[in-house]
Amino acid sequence: MPPLITLLTDFGCQDNYVGVMKGVIAGICPEAKLIDLSHSIPPQDVAAARFALLSAYPYFPEGTIHLCVVDPGVGTNRRAIAIQTAKAFLVGPDNGVFSGVLDQEKDIRVVSLTQAQYWRTSTLSATFHGRDLFAPVAAHLAMGVCLTSLGSEIAPDSLTRPVIPQPEVTEDQILGTIQYIDRFGNGITTIPAPTVEPLRWQVQMETGIIPLAKTYSDVGLGEAIALVGSHGWVEIAVNGGSARLTLGLAIGDEIRLIPKPR
Amino acid sequence: MPPLITLLTDFGCQDNYVGVMKGVIAGICPEAKLIDLSHSIPPQDVAAARFALLSAYPYFPEGTIHLCVVDPGVGTNRRAIAIQTAKAFLVGPDNGVFSGVLDQEKDIRVVSLTQAQYWRTSTLSATFHGRDLFAPVAAHLAMGVCLTSLGSEIAPDSLTRPVIPQPEVTEDQILGTIQYIDRFGNGITTIPAPTVEPLRWQVQMETGIIPLAKTYSDVGLGEAIALVGSHGWVEIAVNGGSARLTLGLAIGDEIRLIPKPR
Amino acid sequence: MPPLITLLTDFGCQDNYVGVMKGVIAGICPEAKLIDLSHSIPPQDVAAARFALLSAYPYFPEGTIHLCVVDPGVGTNRRAIAIQTAKAFLVGPDNGVFSGVLDQEKDIRVVSLTQAQYWRTSTLSATFHGRDLFAPVAAHLAMGVCLTSLGSEIAPDSLTRPVIPQPEVTEDQILGTIQYIDRFGNGITTIPAPTVEPLRWQVQMETGIIPLAKTYSDVGLGEAIALVGSHGWVEIAVNGGSARLTLGLAIGDEIRLIPKPR
Repeated sequence: MPPLITLLTDFGCQDNYVGVMKGVIAGICPEAKLIDLSHSIPPQDVAAARFALLSAYPYFPEGTIHLCVVDPGVGTNRRAIAIQTAKAFLVGPDNGVFSGVLDQEKDIRVVSLTQAQYWRTSTLSATFHGRDLFAPVAAHLAMGVCLTSLGSEIAPDSLTRPVIPQPEVTEDQILGTIQYIDRFGNGITTIPAPTVEPLRWQVQMETGIIPLAKTYSDVGLGEAIALVGSHGWVEIAVNGGSARLTLGLAIGDEIRLIPKPR
Repeated sequence: MPPLITLLTDFGCQDNYVGVMKGVIAGICPEAKLIDLSHSIPPQDVAAARFALLSAYPYFPEGTIHLCVVDPGVGTNRRAIAIQTAKAFLVGPDNGVFSGVLDQEKDIRVVSLTQAQYWRTSTLSATFHGRDLFAPVAAHLAMGVCLTSLGSEIAPDSLTRPVIPQPEVTEDQILGTIQYIDRFGNGITTIPAPTVEPLRWQVQMETGIIPLAKTYSDVGLGEAIALVGSHGWVEIAVNGGSARLTLGLAIGDEIRLIPKPR
Repeated sequence: MPPLITLLTDFGCQDNYVGVMKGVIAGICPEAKLIDLSHSIPPQDVAAARFALLSAYPYFPEGTIHLCVVDPGVGTNRRAIAIQTAKAFLVGPDNGVFSGVLDQEKDIRVVSLTQAQYWRTSTLSATFHGRDLFAPVAAHLAMGVCLTSLGSEIAPDSLTRPVIPQPEVTEDQILGTIQYIDRFGNGITTIPAPTVEPLRWQVQMETGIIPLAKTYSDVGLGEAIALVGSHGWVEIAVNGGSARLTLGLAIGDEIRLIPKPR
């Protein structure tokens, strides 16, 4: 079974930065299989990268190495880290990008990437640690190098963690926010599926009520609907359209669920 | 020879949906080689996906598994299907997306994908059958599972087929339409190459005549030309420019060829 | 070690042209590993492709086959070529796209691709030599076919080479130009790193002075900075922003460095 490395960056598809990282990996571990998670994370948007990783993580096989380079702090003294969970490896900057995955895991080990023999060269460029440090480290993990060879172990508690507002759940209402909007214009909320089971809720928007239902086609074309999305969160959508455009949804918008009338 | 799976979706490159499907495939068939046909099909545009697939199909080796998830009917009772042709496998929704490929093939077998042991889980999400059903089925085909294990065989005649207007050919004129416009702004018509051989035709546009010639450089820079494109259809182009922008071409536009003066 | 082919085109991600080339390669050399350098080169922009290739080339392992199809002259009598350097192979049109790589190499051999048995079919389409000629030739190189089997050897001196203005360096000033602007809006100049070591220079813009420093965070958020970029050239950037947008940088802009006051 060839080792598997996923790549997640904000490098876009225009420049050759992603290709260069893959070239570096191929030079160290030619057998590694590479899968792109996304390279269209908005520049330096750690929260979007965190969401992309946490929502893809459950679907990858054991032993996958997830390489993430969304790294606004490159060149500062932010730590470079690698993490081993029961299921996978994570390689990237210590800026909170892995916190969504770590919420799903219990036993983790973390190292600070200080062993320069696993870097491309012992001197790093000031601006492209993806090429010089993170890609080589991921490739060495793919070659079977063990985590603790890569640097000194650090306490998981010391990792950077962003503050994500938790949804508020009472008998009378559920309050969440839009945490992500996808290409189709669907707004993914912070409200997890089990919170709304059975589906006795509806969404109170400023402009009216949106039903919570099972599938897009439970409403007419062009009509708004809330449903449990494939990510496992409540999602606001428009059948055959874009909730972002039709409803003016934006990241951070508060979403309020109220009980359906009986 | 590693099994080969192509992927064609309208998921775009921003979100992690494509990456997630590849993760699911890698978990079932780690050796499978994955080639992206396109993920930038306009959302829910079955006709564009149909064209992308039929025009790529002839160039792939025998045994290729083509996975297509442009699926506006996800969550409704549209059928999920897999098809075996003399040359390849097709996996996706029964919405007409495969009809262009099937026009090129004679002996086909079709199954309705009802055997849940080949899905990711026996319960499908309402909105992401690419991840839960189509990707796993494609991966199992790559592992050598035979078509008829995947579900019950159905009649090829029962498949959904879109109505595509055929070009009208007489001695005096050929009438076709623009079926696709590519990144370069070239408009691909529905008029197949053999119809215009030898090249005794020219294109009558509202704004004047466009010559039918062999190659872009048969006209000056910035000038319009018609030629037999690499797809095998007559194509309207502008040398060094965009026919879409220069001539205002749009999908569905009627294109009229008339005989060249002798 | 599987053979490695990189792909660089201006085909974009919307159409299936890149996928078709990969299908053709997979039919000839199923084991080849494929890495995309970029497919978002602006249409027919040979200079941008040249930069993408020369700046990625050093990071790929020995024996890599670089396939480049940015080919405004397709269908004319421009030559199709393959090049062997001490380190790699290059396949594409003779339009200057490889000249940046060749500046880094001494011993090279070049053939004009005239042996049709290594093409997809002996008759080429007028518009898609990427599919019909270049991809098959790259795949045959990956299968171990030797360079001189592919066509007749030609003199390296006869290759098309673009005129790239060299930076002017005196005691009092360094004059270069912006040769590329990346996704982050960073402007990469033609001034190579060694020219500015030690960092006794600063950038004289019309709007004021920009410091030459080590890393983005040496200036405040939103402030302009010059630094030695990861490509090895002086780069104009804005910390946490876009130099293209903030400073109005464009390709071809002259950039003047003057000595720092002591």
